[in-house]
Amino acid sequence: MAMRHVVLKHVLSAQPRADDFQILEATPPACPDGGVRARVLYVSLDPYVGSRLRGRHMGEAPPAPMREPIPGACVAQVVETRTPDFAIGDVVHTMEGAWADEIAIAAGHARKLDPAMAPLQAHLSALGMPGLTAWAGVTQRARVGADDIVLVDAAAGAVGGAVGQIARIKGARAIGVAGGAEKVRLVVNEYGFDACVDYKAPDWEKALDAALPAAPTLCFENVSVAMLTTMLSRAAPYARVVLCGLVDQYHADAPPPQIPAGLIIGKRAQVLGLVVYDFYPRWSDFLAEAAPWVREGRLRIAEDVAHGLNGAPALFEKLMQGRNIGKCIVAVAEPS
Amino acid sequence: MAMRHVVLKHVLSAQPRADDFQILEATPPACPDGGVRARVLYVSLDPYVGSRLRGRHMGEAPPAPMREPIPGACVAQVVETRTPDFAIGDVVHTMEGAWADEIAIAAGHARKLDPAMAPLQAHLSALGMPGLTAWAGVTQRARVGADDIVLVDAAAGAVGGAVGQIARIKGARAIGVAGGAEKVRLVVNEYGFDACVDYKAPDWEKALDAALPAAPTLCFENVSVAMLTTMLSRAAPYARVVLCGLVDQYHADAPPPQIPAGLIIGKRAQVLGLVVYDFYPRWSDFLAEAAPWVREGRLRIAEDVAHGLNGAPALFEKLMQGRNIGKCIVAVAEPS
Repeated sequence: MAMRHVVLKHVLSAQPRADDFQILEATPPACPDGGVRARVLYVSLDPYVGSRLRGRHMGEAPPAPMREPIPGACVAQVVETRTPDFAIGDVVHTMEGAWADEIAIAAGHARKLDPAMAPLQAHLSALGMPGLTAWAGVTQRARVGADDIVLVDAAAGAVGGAVGQIARIKGARAIGVAGGAEKVRLVVNEYGFDACVDYKAPDWEKALDAALPAAPTLCFENVSVAMLTTMLSRAAPYARVVLCGLVDQYHADAPPPQIPAGLIIGKRAQVLGLVVYDFYPRWSDFLAEAAPWVREGRLRIAEDVAHGLNGAPALFEKLMQGRNIGKCIVAVAEPS
Repeated sequence: MAMRHVVLKHVLSAQPRADDFQILEATPPACPDGGVRARVLYVSLDPYVGSRLRGRHMGEAPPAPMREPIPGACVAQVVETRTPDFAIGDVVHTMEGAWADEIAIAAGHARKLDPAMAPLQAHLSALGMPGLTAWAGVTQRARVGADDIVLVDAAAGAVGGAVGQIARIKGARAIGVAGGAEKVRLVVNEYGFDACVDYKAPDWEKALDAALPAAPTLCFENVSVAMLTTMLSRAAPYARVVLCGLVDQYHADAPPPQIPAGLIIGKRAQVLGLVVYDFYPRWSDFLAEAAPWVREGRLRIAEDVAHGLNGAPALFEKLMQGRNIGKCIVAVAEPS
């Protein structure tokens, strides 16, 4: 009755690599009172986990100890239940999952999924936290409409890709910034952005100017203050800025990112901090609006999938180094 | 027929002091086609002029040359006119004035004042650019309402004082931060803020915590990023921040001010850049709302007045050093 889970070999002192992890056998967790025990089908690998393992994510936790499960959102199937809310065989989503064959989910931390709504792994990408983040930023914080020109960095990523697609569904134009020709092709050909610019190419800022139909009215910032400065300096007066992640700072052993006040004042900008946790209570509103988009093929996120738990450490290293194309998901098991 | 004006003795290389200026006789300016020549009654001394003289104001101009008039908003009386819009004897407001006995005002740069509306010098304080700045920030950018708790720095200054009073007129509570017991008394006793804290006192941050009835929902920032950080770290989730001046940076020979991105994201803040120039077309809307407040004594700004042009350099030095109490105005001449 043993299961496997992924744990750290040692306390981290640098950006995590595949070698920092090991796969151990373990006793399956007990089913908590009021909760469920579930078999993991898919687990999401997310950039914020890298910083959380090092204790750098919004200053909220110390570094992760060795031999603790690695956190990750999961789609999982109930195998034991101690709540009338879930039956054996139900498929659920939880933010409190782990890189493991089985997980215990405490009361209040599972959300039942309708397998007919969309492919199950979409609940970790377009309909999961990345999609919710994009929806919250585009529709709730920035209230994007048909007159907007939305400039998005990390446009090939799950959040950035969803931002541009949702903005276009709302009638706006979307211009992406991504790193490398393959990602640029994904953003234009698969995600349908109006244009995308490769920031690794020479003279890329000139290419950005040429790609912009007019000054952006919204900058959606996922990556870094340097990129934000490049984007905001091109923005229209009174442009909005959604500050979402500053992903490249999660592992920078450098001072925390700062935004030039003069640029905010000079652009009369409206800078909006976004923390997706606040929107968890709105998940059903989001699904009601976005699930049809997914079924119709209007909102889709490329996936970089590892098959089997053994593949998780290498895929996570790829994610940390920005070499992934699309949302990183580990397919752990088939639903029964 | 000579007049006097104030000019720089030399190109500035540091924060201006009284000694950097001299008062010279000069030929009165010619009346421009389509404009007027006017006798200055009151001239406003403003912090931004210090940076403009050094060429540091929003990077928009090189340092001021010697022997050019020092800019300043004026209330002035028309003595010669080349436009049907103004008659001799009309009292006007202009942003394009100078520290001088007489000024030329080009077409489109004068606004006729109704002497019955309010005391004339109020058009340089509560009804002038400081009042317009406060009104634009409180009512147009932040849309303050009865549920707001507004935390204002430089609360004894003309902008900060008007911010708190307008916020209270809109039903909000206003908490000020000011430097020194005399300024704190002004803010509470004359401006009617709910409370004010002296940032020069020991343990002042504890006093601030004690003075706040609850977490601020709006931080109105006039002074510095250090003060903003102190204020925003106490703010409620989703608080607004109006970024208005960062006055203490106008003369800091230091890198431009930066705002910690993590604090904006962590607070889910809405940071709003404010440039008052954009609201000049709204001046009549502002006067329609605010002039009754001034007449009723609900909006008032203390004045630090120098009598006669000779007093301008010393008063400006006092302003640059933060030793003024209230709006700095030079009373140059009586209306005829």
